Amino acid sequence: MTGADPLPAEFAFIARHFRPLAGPGALDLADDAAAFAPPHGRLLVVAADAMVQGVHFLADDPPETVGRKLLRVNLSDLAAMGAVPLGYLLTMARPRDLGEAWFAGLCDGLACDQDTFGVHLLGGDTTVFSGVSAAPLVLSLTIIGHAAPGAILRRRGAQAGDGLWVTGSIGDAALGLAVLQGRLADPSGVLADRYRLPQPRLAFGAGLHGIAAAAIDVSDGLVQDCGHLCRQSDVTATIEAEAVPRSAAALAAGPHWLETCLTGGDDYELLIAVPEVNNAALHALSARCGIAVTRIGGFAAGAPAVRVIDPSGAAIMLSRTGWSHL
Amino acid sequence: MTGADPLPAEFAFIARHFRPLAGPGALDLADDAAAFAPPHGRLLVVAADAMVQGVHFLADDPPETVGRKLLRVNLSDLAAMGAVPLGYLLTMARPRDLGEAWFAGLCDGLACDQDTFGVHLLGGDTTVFSGVSAAPLVLSLTIIGHAAPGAILRRRGAQAGDGLWVTGSIGDAALGLAVLQGRLADPSGVLADRYRLPQPRLAFGAGLHGIAAAAIDVSDGLVQDCGHLCRQSDVTATIEAEAVPRSAAALAAGPHWLETCLTGGDDYELLIAVPEVNNAALHALSARCGIAVTRIGGFAAGAPAVRVIDPSGAAIMLSRTGWSHL
Repeated sequence: MTGADPLPAEFAFIARHFRPLAGPGALDLADDAAAFAPPHGRLLVVAADAMVQGVHFLADDPPETVGRKLLRVNLSDLAAMGAVPLGYLLTMARPRDLGEAWFAGLCDGLACDQDTFGVHLLGGDTTVFSGVSAAPLVLSLTIIGHAAPGAILRRRGAQAGDGLWVTGSIGDAALGLAVLQGRLADPSGVLADRYRLPQPRLAFGAGLHGIAAAAIDVSDGLVQDCGHLCRQSDVTATIEAEAVPRSAAALAAGPHWLETCLTGGDDYELLIAVPEVNNAALHALSARCGIAVTRIGGFAAGAPAVRVIDPSGAAIMLSRTGWSHL
Repeated sequence: MTGADPLPAEFAFIARHFRPLAGPGALDLADDAAAFAPPHGRLLVVAADAMVQGVHFLADDPPETVGRKLLRVNLSDLAAMGAVPLGYLLTMARPRDLGEAWFAGLCDGLACDQDTFGVHLLGGDTTVFSGVSAAPLVLSLTIIGHAAPGAILRRRGAQAGDGLWVTGSIGDAALGLAVLQGRLADPSGVLADRYRLPQPRLAFGAGLHGIAAAAIDVSDGLVQDCGHLCRQSDVTATIEAEAVPRSAAALAAGPHWLETCLTGGDDYELLIAVPEVNNAALHALSARCGIAVTRIGGFAAGAPAVRVIDPSGAAIMLSRTGWSHL
C-alpha cells in the first residue's frame, strides 16, 4: 500500500510551477476540470493553437518568451474576433531532459503576461515523452474569451470597395527569425524580440465593431492570410507592396527582404477590411489605442485572390504566400 | 502574383478531415476562433488532456480508436465533475509520414463518438513536426461542458464514515495494454477494447448531485486517484482489494495480476465518496443508468493516505500506486 502521502512527482511538478498561475474557476488545479460562471449575456469565444520546438520557436529561445509567445498567439486570435480574454488551458508533451529551471522560466513568463492581459490559467495536463529521445517540446493552449452578441469580427464580410488596412508593422518577426538563425544582422535586437514576443492587438480588435467589415490576424504571412479574407468574403484583394508598413529595423535590412516581410509568418498584426465611410472612426481608434494603422490596398469584385503590386501597378511575383504546415 | 486561389495544403487538410466534424459555434473552422452562446444560467466546466503516441496509445492502435480515446478521456473528466458535454477543440503535432488514410480513420472515429456523446468540434490547430524524424504524434483536446451552479462534484468533500464506491470494473484497461504488448493472452478481445475505448460515465456523474460527497475519475490508477480524493478531502481511505470489481476477463488473467488492476491506469471509471444515508439513492442511480456500482472500502479520519487490505484485514504492499508522467 503506502498511498497518498508522497505526492506523485507529476502532481508535485504541477503544484510547484502551475498552481501559482491558477485563477478563479481553476479550483487550484486540484480537480478534474475547471468550473466558472461565464460572463452574463456574452458569447464565448474560444481558440486553440499548438507550438512545437524547432517549428514555432527555437530550442534556445528563453523559456520566459516561449510561454508568452504561445499565450500571445492565442490572444491574437481573440483580438481578430474582437473578443476580451478570460483564461486559458495549457497542455504539454515534454522531453525528459528539459529541467526544472526551464519550466520555472516558462511560468515566470506566463505570470508576467497574465498580469498584462488579465487572464489566468484554468487547467491543463502535462505528460512526458517516454522512450523517444529526440522528441521536441510540444505545447498546446486553448484560450477562452467573450464578446457581445453581434459584435464578433469574422473573416467574411469584406466587400468590393473596402480598404485593406493593417496594424503595426509587417515582417519584423520573419526577419527576427532570420536574425536568430544567423542569416541577418540586427544589433538593435528589435527584430528578434518581435519574433519571440508578438503583441496581440486586443484593445484595437475589441474597438473594431462598427468599423471593420472583416478581420483576421496575420499569423502565417500577410499574403496568405489576406487570401483567407478574400476566400471567406468572396472578393479579390490588391496589396500595394510599398504601402506595407515596415519598421526602421526591417527597412534597414534592405529591399531584398521585402518578400520575406510580405510572406513570413508570426506578425500577429490585424488585417482589416474597412468601408471608406469608416476611415475616420478607424483613425480615431488608432489614436485611442496608440497603435498605428496603415492602408495597404483594397478589395474589389472578383474571384478570391491576392495581387501584390509595385508602385507602377505591375504585379510582383512571389515564390510563396506564407507558412503552411504540410 | 498568384494569391489565394489554391487553398494552402494545411487548410485543405483541415477542410477535408475536420470541417465535417464542426458544429454550431465552430463557424465552419473558417475563422480565428469559435463563438457561441453558453447555456443560460449554467457554469462552464472545462478540461484539457493530451495524448502521446507510445505513452497513451500504441503506434498500431487503429486511428478510429485513438481519436475516440482522447475524446472519451476528456469526457470522463466532465463525468467526474457531474457536467454535461458541449464541444471540444483539438490540436495536433504530427509526424510527416502519417498519411491521409490515418487521419480519415481518426475523424471517422470522432464522428461516431460525436453522435454518441452529443458533442461537436469547435476549433483547433494542426502542425507538422519538421526536421524531427522520430517525433511521435501528439494530440491535445480541450473539452467544454456545463453544469448547474452548486451541482458540480469536487475531489474535496469526502468525510470520515463515507463509503468508497466505484463504477463498472477496474483493471481491464491496464490488462488490455498487457494484451496488446503480448504480455497476456485474452482471446475475447474485451481487455484490449477497454484499453482503447474508455466508457465515460457521463449520465452516472450527472446523476450524483445530492448523492456523492466527492468524486474523481480513475485515470492514473485506482490507488493513486483515491489518494487525490484523500488529499483534497483530508481523510484516509481503506480499499478492500477483494471487493474491487473485476471483469470475468480480468479474473481469468489470474491473481498475480491483482496489483496491475489496482494500480494500472486508463480505467475511466468514477471513484465516489458516498455518505451511508445515500446508499439507496446510489443504487437507484445505478439501476437507472445500467452501470454497476460497487462499494470497495471507506473513509476515516486521519492523515491523507490509502491503505489496501486483504480479506484478513492485513495491508497489501504495492510496488507502485499508479501512473506518473515524470
